[in-house]
Amino acid sequence: MTARFERIALIGLGLIAGSIAHAARRGDLVGTLVGYARSEATRAKAAEIGLVDEVAATAAEAVKEADLVILCVPVGVMGAVAAEIGPHLKPGAILSDVGSVKQTVIDAVAPHVPDGVHFVPSHPVAGTEHSGPESGFATLYDGRFTLLTPPEGTDQAAVDHLAAFWRGLGANVEEMEPAHHDLVLAVTSHAPHLIAYTMVGVADDLRRVTHSEVIKYSAAGFRDFTRIAASDPTMWRDVFLNNKEATLEILGRFTEELFALQRAIRTGDGDTLHAYFTRTRAIRRGIIEAGQDTDAPNFGRGLPPK
Amino acid sequence: MTARFERIALIGLGLIAGSIAHAARRGDLVGTLVGYARSEATRAKAAEIGLVDEVAATAAEAVKEADLVILCVPVGVMGAVAAEIGPHLKPGAILSDVGSVKQTVIDAVAPHVPDGVHFVPSHPVAGTEHSGPESGFATLYDGRFTLLTPPEGTDQAAVDHLAAFWRGLGANVEEMEPAHHDLVLAVTSHAPHLIAYTMVGVADDLRRVTHSEVIKYSAAGFRDFTRIAASDPTMWRDVFLNNKEATLEILGRFTEELFALQRAIRTGDGDTLHAYFTRTRAIRRGIIEAGQDTDAPNFGRGLPPK
Repeated sequence: MTARFERIALIGLGLIAGSIAHAARRGDLVGTLVGYARSEATRAKAAEIGLVDEVAATAAEAVKEADLVILCVPVGVMGAVAAEIGPHLKPGAILSDVGSVKQTVIDAVAPHVPDGVHFVPSHPVAGTEHSGPESGFATLYDGRFTLLTPPEGTDQAAVDHLAAFWRGLGANVEEMEPAHHDLVLAVTSHAPHLIAYTMVGVADDLRRVTHSEVIKYSAAGFRDFTRIAASDPTMWRDVFLNNKEATLEILGRFTEELFALQRAIRTGDGDTLHAYFTRTRAIRRGIIEAGQDTDAPNFGRGLPPK
Repeated sequence: MTARFERIALIGLGLIAGSIAHAARRGDLVGTLVGYARSEATRAKAAEIGLVDEVAATAAEAVKEADLVILCVPVGVMGAVAAEIGPHLKPGAILSDVGSVKQTVIDAVAPHVPDGVHFVPSHPVAGTEHSGPESGFATLYDGRFTLLTPPEGTDQAAVDHLAAFWRGLGANVEEMEPAHHDLVLAVTSHAPHLIAYTMVGVADDLRRVTHSEVIKYSAAGFRDFTRIAASDPTMWRDVFLNNKEATLEILGRFTEELFALQRAIRTGDGDTLHAYFTRTRAIRRGIIEAGQDTDAPNFGRGLPPK
């Protein structure tokens, strides 16, 4: 199974699309890369830095003749973009997306996919807090997981081709049911992001603690929350609005648990706290052993060069 | 004002004490370093790796003749250790501690400080998720802040000497009221830690999401929470039990805000979410500009070497 596509169209030219472009070139996985972004400034920047070979003036123009089209736009506009490009997709082409939510994206995009075009939704579980056409880099997907959530009846050859492409970009590839994907990601991503945004907002609000105090003494834990809470606002608004049920369910579980720990603090129940904090240590070890994070203290920040 | 002490005793030999030892030697700030830890295994390891010049068999023996004694033990045992060493402190010596909570430590330690000994509480706002005698390193305090919270009437020369010592270790030094310290740290450290512990506990609990799924897809945000939730359980149990009021107050504010955002998700109020997420981006910028975190995406993890 080849991992290569002769012509790939990237709709949306931010962190995820940019990293696909860099990694596809690194792996010699693409003939011609064409890109489109709604913002004229983004298109101009992408052309200036040579992010893609051709910058198209419209999404419809970008997808013509493309063998692989990847929607790299916020989840909330996937349906509108699919409606726009649907009539222009080449028969036999693969249409994919990189949305962090899968069920609502499938519901919004699938009706616009013409017969003979293979829709294979995907989600690369990787990212940074940066955004825009200059934020991508070739190694973003190395060793990370990309989840494919093909609807029932999807052409297996198309799924295999896209999987080979993602492996060529450096990722491990797995398949998952869309609804299960949305629950798993609510746990590992969506709820943590909302919690981080909330904590940073609270700190910013507190009148008795000055802004500069929050910043100066952030090395005690808070600064890690601010990295997550610096992620793209539009992308995250759309994630929460489109994975409402699972996110609210996990947040409900979170609040219940937080109240139990608050109660332990209030009543001075040190044993409960100690047991809880001991248990959570183990999961960190698993993440490091799975190669999903560095073992260096503080993620390696502030360490002397070896 | 000299930054140097002829004889320093470190009571407790974990991450914070070990980093003091390495940084004090780097800066030539100490004649002889003596150390004591309650655990025999820790004492043996500290002797084996030469963390200090002398390992004492008891805390009382360790502090004899020391010009500076630093209590580097969990906040919950500061009072007991102070009671044990009080009678053996050298007249004119400075007694300090590194507790993450200040008011209860002052209340617990001050009664055991003999006349002629200067008690200057301190808190280096730095750390990692690692612990134990081998986890310390010389650069931990470089560019971070150490807060001194001397009770009223503390000898100014002693405060200045300790401040010079911390600056010699690499830290910026500031003074603060103990109660205000405890509120600031509840925001920048204690509440974020409890929230991270809670989220990791929830993920670990969820039966429909397997342990391995949580680990494999952690790069989407969750892994950063697990680093914080891998911190020393005893230290953190004591922090929460000793900064109960401020922590519960901040957690109350946090829950209120979280409920408001949950409501925005439930009602589909995208404007509120977008505005909130935009505001929290600014505080990250402040932290980077203040030199308290790296600007590299993902803290530099997964980037190719330059």
